[in-house]
Amino acid sequence: MAYYDHQHREKIESLSSMWSRLSGIEDLARTYNISDIAQDNNLKLLQTLVLFDFQNQPGREGSDAIDRYGHAWELKTVNIDLTSSFSTNHHTNLERIAVFRQERWLFSAYRGISLQEVYAVSPIALEEYFSKWEDAVRIKIAGHNENAHLNNPKIPLKYVRNVGIKVYPLDIPLDPAEALRVL
Amino acid sequence: MAYYDHQHREKIESLSSMWSRLSGIEDLARTYNISDIAQDNNLKLLQTLVLFDFQNQPGREGSDAIDRYGHAWELKTVNIDLTSSFSTNHHTNLERIAVFRQERWLFSAYRGISLQEVYAVSPIALEEYFSKWEDAVRIKIAGHNENAHLNNPKIPLKYVRNVGIKVYPLDIPLDPAEALRVL
Repeated sequence: MAYYDHQHREKIESLSSMWSRLSGIEDLARTYNISDIAQDNNLKLLQTLVLFDFQNQPGREGSDAIDRYGHAWELKTVNIDLTSSFSTNHHTNLERIAVFRQERWLFSAYRGISLQEVYAVSPIALEEYFSKWEDAVRIKIAGHNENAHLNNPKIPLKYVRNVGIKVYPLDIPLDPAEALRVL
Repeated sequence: MAYYDHQHREKIESLSSMWSRLSGIEDLARTYNISDIAQDNNLKLLQTLVLFDFQNQPGREGSDAIDRYGHAWELKTVNIDLTSSFSTNHHTNLERIAVFRQERWLFSAYRGISLQEVYAVSPIALEEYFSKWEDAVRIKIAGHNENAHLNNPKIPLKYVRNVGIKVYPLDIPLDPAEALRVL
């Protein structure tokens, strides 16, 4: 294919027509204070907010969403076509782990952009990970590492399936905010 | 709105119908080895590859794309609704700066997901930034910082407009690969 030949122009035209249909999603995203659906994980964030009636919590270092009771949620996604563990935070230090312990967790497994399963998990059920990460950070601190943290410690989907409350797909809808109202 | 009431179900239904129309884009993305259009900056990456007939170069630490002459390109986007400078790399160390000097650069400015302007820039025109960053990293190295790097040093759109070759929008198409065939 040569630059801007017939084949190239057709490809551009085809994408352009598909692209224009993104505007509906972009408009919906704006109502959730999502300003760019092509950035970060915002498309999947939007889907989670809509499906589970969460409010967005913009600002990347805070919690990701707030439920109807004002509880903070950490939202995690994994593309199971690529990997089988959820990434957490690229700068997991003691402060972040302390925040993790205060949040409810929602884990969504996708194939590409197709949602497969969602689990609500109490932070109490994740304590074995938090403790392990905390120990690893403390060892770094003891070694005089000034910027002691872990880079994206993982939580396996397999573990999430074992301890989590499945909220999608379900025949009878289950509100994650209700399911984890009291920890 | 109560969980899964009429209003909530309508919202879910509306998103679901818009979501299903993403499959065309997802299929096109797969032909460029993009496995998840909702991850990273992949939607905008796809648009760049299609518009300028680049090949994808998956693997995040390498170059982002390859042109018809086999030249490596660093692709940068900015959402000018949010900020006016391009971010570069969160771990810009001496090795990365050395790679930056070998790459052609394509800078795309968006409003949300709507493409506004694109500029092709020779690495030679960015040397004043590379030198400044290199000096800053060397000072950290001199201070015995074991992991000396800069976190996402910026290049202003204003600078890019001054030194770049505009390749979008144009009445007469201009192939960036051709425009920067020889540095």
